[in-house]
Amino acid sequence: MKSFFHSIDGSVVAPKGFKASGVFCDIKRLGTGKGSNKGRKLDLAMVASDAPAVVAGMFTTNQVCAAPVKVSVPRAALKRSRAIVANSGNANACTGAQGMKDAIEMGALTAKELGVGEEEVLICSTGRIGLNLPMENVRNGIRLAAGALSHDATSAHNAAEAIMTSDSVTKEVAVEFKIGGSPVRIGGICKGAGMIEPGMSPTGSRPATMPLHATMLCFVTTDVAISKTLLQRALKQAVALSFNRITVDGDMSTNDSVIVLANGQSGAARIRSSSSPDFIRFQEALNHVCLDLAKKIVADGEGVTRKVTVFLNGARTHKEADAAARCVANSELVKTSWYGGDPNWGRVMDALGYSPSKVVEEKVDIGYRIPGSRKVLFALKKGRPTRTPIEDLRKISGAEEFEIVINLNLGKGEAIIYTCDLSEEYVDFNKGE
Amino acid sequence: MKSFFHSIDGSVVAPKGFKASGVFCDIKRLGTGKGSNKGRKLDLAMVASDAPAVVAGMFTTNQVCAAPVKVSVPRAALKRSRAIVANSGNANACTGAQGMKDAIEMGALTAKELGVGEEEVLICSTGRIGLNLPMENVRNGIRLAAGALSHDATSAHNAAEAIMTSDSVTKEVAVEFKIGGSPVRIGGICKGAGMIEPGMSPTGSRPATMPLHATMLCFVTTDVAISKTLLQRALKQAVALSFNRITVDGDMSTNDSVIVLANGQSGAARIRSSSSPDFIRFQEALNHVCLDLAKKIVADGEGVTRKVTVFLNGARTHKEADAAARCVANSELVKTSWYGGDPNWGRVMDALGYSPSKVVEEKVDIGYRIPGSRKVLFALKKGRPTRTPIEDLRKISGAEEFEIVINLNLGKGEAIIYTCDLSEEYVDFNKGE
Repeated sequence: MKSFFHSIDGSVVAPKGFKASGVFCDIKRLGTGKGSNKGRKLDLAMVASDAPAVVAGMFTTNQVCAAPVKVSVPRAALKRSRAIVANSGNANACTGAQGMKDAIEMGALTAKELGVGEEEVLICSTGRIGLNLPMENVRNGIRLAAGALSHDATSAHNAAEAIMTSDSVTKEVAVEFKIGGSPVRIGGICKGAGMIEPGMSPTGSRPATMPLHATMLCFVTTDVAISKTLLQRALKQAVALSFNRITVDGDMSTNDSVIVLANGQSGAARIRSSSSPDFIRFQEALNHVCLDLAKKIVADGEGVTRKVTVFLNGARTHKEADAAARCVANSELVKTSWYGGDPNWGRVMDALGYSPSKVVEEKVDIGYRIPGSRKVLFALKKGRPTRTPIEDLRKISGAEEFEIVINLNLGKGEAIIYTCDLSEEYVDFNKGE
Repeated sequence: MKSFFHSIDGSVVAPKGFKASGVFCDIKRLGTGKGSNKGRKLDLAMVASDAPAVVAGMFTTNQVCAAPVKVSVPRAALKRSRAIVANSGNANACTGAQGMKDAIEMGALTAKELGVGEEEVLICSTGRIGLNLPMENVRNGIRLAAGALSHDATSAHNAAEAIMTSDSVTKEVAVEFKIGGSPVRIGGICKGAGMIEPGMSPTGSRPATMPLHATMLCFVTTDVAISKTLLQRALKQAVALSFNRITVDGDMSTNDSVIVLANGQSGAARIRSSSSPDFIRFQEALNHVCLDLAKKIVADGEGVTRKVTVFLNGARTHKEADAAARCVANSELVKTSWYGGDPNWGRVMDALGYSPSKVVEEKVDIGYRIPGSRKVLFALKKGRPTRTPIEDLRKISGAEEFEIVINLNLGKGEAIIYTCDLSEEYVDFNKGE
C-alpha cells in the first residue's frame, strides 16, 4: 500500500519555522575539567517556534508526578505556546517546593532568552528521581541552548541527543504530505529506555479507563494550521495507539510527556473539521510519527534483545483485551522465556489466567508470527497443544522480532501491546547507581 | 515473648498417625540407565493418615488451573480425607481431557494401594505446563510411594524433597503445644521457587477481594481433633497471613494448593468453638507454621539474593494498602535496585504513584529497617528526602534481609508483603528449557 506521506530528514526542524538545539551544561555535576570530554553527554534541549504555535500535550497519570509535569500541564491547556525546554540527568521529581521553583525558573529564563511569554514555555525533565537540579548549571545551559537554536537538522539531532538517558541511539522521525496541494510536515524526537509503561492523559489525571500502569519524552512539531481542539483530539488518538501501548518494564514514570506544537507556517490551508479529509490525513500521519517513535523506544529499551508484539483478540471487551495483553507483556516469566527464545505458551496461558480479563482455558488459541507475514503458526488451539513442531515455533520466537497472536474466542475486544524481553542486561543495568 | 509452642522435628509425620514417603519414578522421562544416579531427583510424594482426617484446602484462583486442582477442589470440600499424592516435574496443566483422566487415575491408584476411598485422596502436581504425564512412570511411582510410607522423619524429608522443582532446599516445619494438658502437633512441608504470587481461595474461584495476582504446594498435618468448619476457617486465616502475602515474581501459578489434614489422633480434647482458647492457640500455631513455610519459599525463590519485607501503613483501606505494597514488591525497577543493594526510594515512590491506591506525594514516609530492630531509618518524610546519609541507608538495603517501611499517612489501611530482589540469576534460570 503506497502511503500518502513520505519520510524526510530533520525531525523537529523539518516543519517550517521551528528551531532546536542541544547543549552540555553538566546537570549530573560531573565537574569535567577543561579539555576533558569524559561524560560530556549533551543534557539540555530546546525546541522553539518562530511564530506562536497551537499546543497540545499528554502527561503521565502517575500520582507522584514531577515538578515540570505539574508546571507544564496547565500551560499545555492554554491555546498557544512557543518553546519547550528539557533536561536529562535529573527528573526533578519528588523535589518539593524547590523543585517547583526550579521548573518555573527553567521556563522563565527560557522565555526571557527567547523574548516570549513565560506561560508560552513548556518544561520537561528526565533522569534520577529525588535530587534537586543544579540550577547554576541549568541556567548556563538554557543560555547556551537559546544561543544555539537553529533551523539546521544538526540542531534537531542535538536536541534528540540531549534528552537521552539510558537510550543508546537518538530517536527521530519526520514526514511530509500535502494539504490542498501544499506540502506540510510533522517531525518528532523522543527518548525512552527504562521505566516504560506510559499511561498518559491530557490533564495528567487518571481517567477510569486508563491502563493502571519510563520516562518517555516526545516532542512533535508541525507546520499545519489547526485549532487547539483538533490538535488535542489528534494527539490523544495518536498517543492511545502508540506510546500508551508500549511497555518495557511495566513501570509508569513520574515524568512521561508528549507535547505537540503546530505553528501553521506551511502556508497550506487550515484544517477545518474533524470530518475533513485533511484532518484524517493529518491524523494518520501523526499516528505514524508517534508509532514510529514508540517502537523505537521499545527497540532501544534497557537490555532489550528481542522485540515482541502481543496481538490479543477475542476478549469480551477492549478493556479486558488490554488488561490480558499487558499481563502477558509484563510477566517476568513470559519475558524471560522470550529472552531465551523459548516459545513457552504455558507461561502465556498462566499470565492470561491471572489477568483480570475473562479467560476460558478450552477456548484459547496462541500462535507465533514473523512480522509482515500473514501466517500464524499456532502452538495452541482451543486450549490444546497443536502438532506444530517445537523447532518451527522456536524459529519464530528465536528471531530478533516476532509477534504473538492470542485469541480468547469470547468476544470482539482487541488490543495490541508493543513490548520486549527481560534480559540479564536489564537487571545488571538497573541494579545500582 | 515466650511462645506457647515449640519447634520439633519430623514435619508432616510429627503429628501422631501420619506417614509419608518420597520416591523417584522418572516423571521428566530422563530415562536414566541402570546404575546411573544422574538426575534421579525424587519426584513423587505421598502423605497419608492412619485414620480418616478432617480436610481443608486453599487453591489457586488462576482461571487457567491445572487438572489436579480441578479434581482436588471438590474433594477438599468433603468432610474427610486420607491421603495426598503429589508429583513434581510436570504440572498437568493445560492438558485437556487426558490431564483430567490422569489426575483422577493418580487418586484412584493411590486409594487402591492404601485401601481408602477414591474421594479421600487429594492430588497435586507441579512442574512444566502443557505436557501430559508419563502415566506408566507415575503408576510405578505411586506403588513405590505407597510401599515406602513410614512414620519415620526421613520419610517426611523424602516427601518434601519429592515435591521440589527449582527449590534448592527442602522446606519443613513442625511445632508442638498443649490442649487441655495433652500435647498436640502441627507439621508442614512446602515447595516454591518460581511463579510465585499465590492468591488462593477455598474453592479456587476468585472472590472480589482477592489479590489479582509459584507454583507453591503446601501440605500440613495435625493430630488435633477439630471440625471441618473450624479447620477451614483456621486455614483461611493462616493462608491470608502467609502464602497469599508473598511474591517472588508476580506470576500466580495454575497449581497453587495448600491442604491440611487433621486426624484427631493426639488424644487431646476436641477444639469446640472459634472463641475457645484452644482454637485461638491452634490458629496461632497454624499461622506460625504457614508463615514459616511461606518465608522459606521467598528465601529460596529463583535467583533470590536479598529478602525484603514491605510494610505498607496509612493507606485509606487494607485493599489499597495491599495493592500499593504489591506494586512496590513487583516493580522490576524496584526489585533490580534491591538486587544492587541500592536504597532507591525514588523508584519506590514511582511504583506507589502508579498503584491503584490513593497516594499523596507530600504525605509519604519511606524508611528502611533491619529485621528485629525497632528503629526505622527514614529516607523520605512527608515526600521530602531526610538528612539521613545515603551510606547509612545503604548499610540496611545492602543486607541479605531488610524491611522497607512505607506510611502513606492517609488512613488506617495496612498490609505486609514478603518478597525478594530480581537478579540476573533469575533471568538466566528462566530464559529457557
